[in-house]
Amino acid sequence: MTQATLNSTRTTAAKGLACKECGAEYELKATHICELCFGPLEVQYDYDYLRTKVTRESIKAGPHSIWRYKDLLPVPDEHIVDVGTGMTPLLKANRLARRLGLKNLYIKNDAVNMPTLSFKDRVVSVALSKAKEFGFSTISCASTGNLANSTAAIAAHAGLDCCVFIPADLEAGKVLGTVIYGPTVMAVQGNYDQVNRLCCEVANTYGWGFVNINLRPYYSEGSKTLGYEVAEQLGWQLPDHIVAPLASGSLFTKIHKGFQEFVKVGLVEDKPVRFSGAQAEGCSPIAQAYAEGRDFVTPVKPNTIAKSIAIGNPADGIYALELARKTNGNIESVTDEEIIEGMKLLAETEGIFTETAGGTTIAVLKKLVEAGKINPDETTVVYITGNGLKTQESVQGYVGEPFTIEAKLDSFERALERSQTLDRLDWQQVLV
Amino acid sequence: MTQATLNSTRTTAAKGLACKECGAEYELKATHICELCFGPLEVQYDYDYLRTKVTRESIKAGPHSIWRYKDLLPVPDEHIVDVGTGMTPLLKANRLARRLGLKNLYIKNDAVNMPTLSFKDRVVSVALSKAKEFGFSTISCASTGNLANSTAAIAAHAGLDCCVFIPADLEAGKVLGTVIYGPTVMAVQGNYDQVNRLCCEVANTYGWGFVNINLRPYYSEGSKTLGYEVAEQLGWQLPDHIVAPLASGSLFTKIHKGFQEFVKVGLVEDKPVRFSGAQAEGCSPIAQAYAEGRDFVTPVKPNTIAKSIAIGNPADGIYALELARKTNGNIESVTDEEIIEGMKLLAETEGIFTETAGGTTIAVLKKLVEAGKINPDETTVVYITGNGLKTQESVQGYVGEPFTIEAKLDSFERALERSQTLDRLDWQQVLV
Ligand SMILES: [Zn+2]
Ligand SMILES: [Zn+2]
Repeated sequence: MTQATLNSTRTTAAKGLACKECGAEYELKATHICELCFGPLEVQYDYDYLRTKVTRESIKAGPHSIWRYKDLLPVPDEHIVDVGTGMTPLLKANRLARRLGLKNLYIKNDAVNMPTLSFKDRVVSVALSKAKEFGFSTISCASTGNLANSTAAIAAHAGLDCCVFIPADLEAGKVLGTVIYGPTVMAVQGNYDQVNRLCCEVANTYGWGFVNINLRPYYSEGSKTLGYEVAEQLGWQLPDHIVAPLASGSLFTKIHKGFQEFVKVGLVEDKPVRFSGAQAEGCSPIAQAYAEGRDFVTPVKPNTIAKSIAIGNPADGIYALELARKTNGNIESVTDEEIIEGMKLLAETEGIFTETAGGTTIAVLKKLVEAGKINPDETTVVYITGNGLKTQESVQGYVGEPFTIEAKLDSFERALERSQTLDRLDWQQVLV
Repeated sequence: MTQATLNSTRTTAAKGLACKECGAEYELKATHICELCFGPLEVQYDYDYLRTKVTRESIKAGPHSIWRYKDLLPVPDEHIVDVGTGMTPLLKANRLARRLGLKNLYIKNDAVNMPTLSFKDRVVSVALSKAKEFGFSTISCASTGNLANSTAAIAAHAGLDCCVFIPADLEAGKVLGTVIYGPTVMAVQGNYDQVNRLCCEVANTYGWGFVNINLRPYYSEGSKTLGYEVAEQLGWQLPDHIVAPLASGSLFTKIHKGFQEFVKVGLVEDKPVRFSGAQAEGCSPIAQAYAEGRDFVTPVKPNTIAKSIAIGNPADGIYALELARKTNGNIESVTDEEIIEGMKLLAETEGIFTETAGGTTIAVLKKLVEAGKINPDETTVVYITGNGLKTQESVQGYVGEPFTIEAKLDSFERALERSQTLDRLDWQQVLV
């Protein structure tokens, strides 16, 4: 576990870091907070240069992963760790659209992202590539689960040492889906915000690369690819409306940055895109601020089954709030019951099994449609960010059970009669 | 649930069905057994026509899914159900190769296949496309789990009714990963072979499309794409050696058919490819026949954690046996303990979390290398067919546990000291 060199050579279009609050500029190093005002730092690019370099054709000639957009990411070619992350399907969701009364609905399905089935594989791929460039040999993160899976898996593939921090009450699938890769796992007695605070202390003490702390400016750039891919997959145009889950708020703002960069570089036409955000009622600090017309976010203590988005003190909450307001979008929250219904609705209509975060997003989509806040004709893209196999306990008992039968035709036929009765009853409940 | 028309219009290169035993020919209908000799039926193609139609360029211009090979599959364009299945990564497995002493090792990773994370999405995509063409409105299958997941998900997406049959003792992840899509699920008290016998009775009685019974000739063609993709991803050439799991034996023989068709159509050069098969010791009828030099397969009663490949009476066992022998390959089996070690080895070296079937394949790979049965210089491709999140109970208790700590720096530091001791111990065990 050696100390990293902390310096990046300038071989990409990334010019440096800049503070989102005061604009102070920094070199491309392993740091994430402005020394002057404590604002978050973000990677800056030379867009004039990119405009001459990047074309639709150059992108299409690249690999079928986020690295087709490598010119717009802050990693030099020789350090790229490409595990096939990204280029997940953008599915035209006709059956779900019909059920909800929409006409142009798409699902961006990161529940099948590679290698660990969540959008976190995007941000970790960028962060670990940058960590290799900086020379870090130990990688770490503060995680609500998906990030731990992704960090442990990609670190294993890249041959880096790994120590991840998770809340002790995480779902079994997310714990197993981390320890299987052989990292050191610290299960912290506390919620994510406490885990995160501990990790900030550790980051200041140890020379480790924390993907979402000292590597955060690079890490968060990975989420831009969710904007790029949707624009490319829609035939090089922007959608009218997007709906995405809000945890720290970073994903939301980076999708926007992705769209804006495609406009700046001349890959798509500019047009207004509405940004709507989804939270679970049990952890909805941004939705509360939105509903109350506040321009600040008050931290809350999370209490919801949607653990992967249960961040009570969201780092980019205020930017998400601004974005929803200035684009004429919305921020809405839903109950745990609605989240489970959302998971079932997506599975039954589109054959996609998402985790609680995805259930939250679908439930918010439904709520916004019912409130007339999504125009049926709008090209609407819903971001599904993780896989249901990781949060199995949240739906156990709320979904149908198999009929247990003997291996005989008459036993099957008796069950079939019962099942058809049940189907009809279920259906009537749906219609009520 | 209407009766299907059972007839296909000839708008593809598929000419008809032929018996693998006596060669008797049949029309392209929903049938799978020869009326004369009870041999299995297989789809025949017009290769002269295909040779003029299919090129590397025509394939590359197609979608990033198995449907880029649509000319070599028995479904007319208008009935294709494309849910993004296929084109999973072919990963150069350098870290696993080094650990085993190999030089050119690749993993074909269907643990991240779409939409349900196993190779079964390939066969079901083809079967349901064909079922739509035939006009079936209810889809069914006999499954060890992955097939049920895939059939339920893709039927939901396609808006078809679905009833699946599984053994009652299946892993929780596979049951939930089926019921979530809202099909009727029959959990049969018995093993897969009993489930399969019941389904044959049901198929004869009801007008349903059973993907792996009356639709089996079309269904099994989907596995050819695992041959096509590897050849394309290796830069349009065949590997020297492949290692794949053996359940019914169908996958194995269809990978071979895929390679042979690419040669026939002029897409790759012909060359010898060795075929090695993997079974779990607790269900190894084909490996036993191989070891004993028999040319018949004696059915066994399965007893292994590798449930997805636990078929005691394998329909294509004899063809798999012949293929391993005639290509100078091998068939080997491993214990449940070795299977778990195989899962851990793949996760720790390559960041891929596979299910028990994949652990079986990796463990057999290791055993063959240690026995000198794989040449270190051979380009070897290992097929990983399913995801570890579905068989979590099989490894619970056999993998590392997190350290539970308080949200304080000193609590973390005490755990870190303990973890480093443990790491060193583990490592010594690996080296012994
Ligand atoms: Zn500042
Ligand atoms: Zn015959």
